Amino acid sequence: MRILYHLPLSPQSRQVRLVLAEKRLPYEPKTEKVWENRPEYLALNPAGDVPLLVEENGLSIPNAWVICEYLEEAYPDTPLMGRTLAERVEVRRLMAWFEGKFGHEVSRNLLGEKVDKRLAGRGNPDGTALRAGYANMRFHLDYIGWLAETRAWLAGNMLSMADFAAAAHLSCLDYIGDIDWSKAPAAKDWYARMKSRPSFRSLLNDRVNGFNPPAHYADLDF
Amino acid sequence: MRILYHLPLSPQSRQVRLVLAEKRLPYEPKTEKVWENRPEYLALNPAGDVPLLVEENGLSIPNAWVICEYLEEAYPDTPLMGRTLAERVEVRRLMAWFEGKFGHEVSRNLLGEKVDKRLAGRGNPDGTALRAGYANMRFHLDYIGWLAETRAWLAGNMLSMADFAAAAHLSCLDYIGDIDWSKAPAAKDWYARMKSRPSFRSLLNDRVNGFNPPAHYADLDF
Repeated sequence: MRILYHLPLSPQSRQVRLVLAEKRLPYEPKTEKVWENRPEYLALNPAGDVPLLVEENGLSIPNAWVICEYLEEAYPDTPLMGRTLAERVEVRRLMAWFEGKFGHEVSRNLLGEKVDKRLAGRGNPDGTALRAGYANMRFHLDYIGWLAETRAWLAGNMLSMADFAAAAHLSCLDYIGDIDWSKAPAAKDWYARMKSRPSFRSLLNDRVNGFNPPAHYADLDF
Repeated sequence: MRILYHLPLSPQSRQVRLVLAEKRLPYEPKTEKVWENRPEYLALNPAGDVPLLVEENGLSIPNAWVICEYLEEAYPDTPLMGRTLAERVEVRRLMAWFEGKFGHEVSRNLLGEKVDKRLAGRGNPDGTALRAGYANMRFHLDYIGWLAETRAWLAGNMLSMADFAAAAHLSCLDYIGDIDWSKAPAAKDWYARMKSRPSFRSLLNDRVNGFNPPAHYADLDF
């Protein structure tokens, strides 16, 4: 059986879980406490982070982007990367946007401070980082809303890896109660569509010790 | 004419310059002072960073990774991403390694502190960051040396995007005199091979006001 080493509140792990589910590829999830630096895990993945996908033939594939490119090439039946060169540029541009800009400006400041630090026992959240994260999120939710209002899906006419990258980050932030959906109606409409997909179910069932999601987290009509 | 918006001491820009040259794709380089946040540039590239490639047909492609994937799909004659699924995983794993781990642990600490800060007028280098950068670089040069000694090229039997990603970072660090090659003989041998490629010439001719490279920077027999 295919194995996915992951963490429930890692956006990069959730992105891969969504893509695996959309492509109907079964896998066994294994929680990897990366802060423990298990030697056996570092041997499989020298970068030491999650996610890591290990195929039944033994091929180890680290990094959400590398895994998504691999899954698209190995299992092209449900295409999620666009068809034309221009479509593929736009899908990947937004993947880079959510992983790079959104990841650094929002997720690192909020999830990194509130979740990663506590799990790894690295102290309390830094107030400056939290304030920056909330301020940046407003801008990013507006951008997501603008994309969702002017296109069928974030990258264009087709559901794509860009939607799953964005939804993965937002779903983690929503789990810790950090999204004020009342201020982002267009982004909320798009997220409601994402949330009602069967691929989202396992994310909505996630529960992490010590972190209780708000009541609306798993509610499709939030 | 194809245009590349870049900065001479940006590893991501250099990675794309190397790949364009290897694929023999002519382009007009334009220096973009990203810290000035030119509105015309932000309209082309909302992320506001370099590199940005603009094709003659008007297609704008930001982000080194997105550009490299695009160039491989649009101009496959000189393949640089591997052929089999496993080869492509290894090339992309190392691209992610150099952009992610090396970039964060070494380049951001050294180039970010010494070059980016001065160019943007954001003050003096932080001593803690510099010490971390130098300490991390030793580990990374050993890893590059180990890869180079056990394989023909970093990702395996073929020259690939992984070599250009690594060489792009090292060439910037070498420009500011931050690499002690005497302590990394295996990495040095591999870098000497990279440096002697015709695609490297334009990098070796770079000169940036206020930053003078050491004498060995452009010397193929360093």
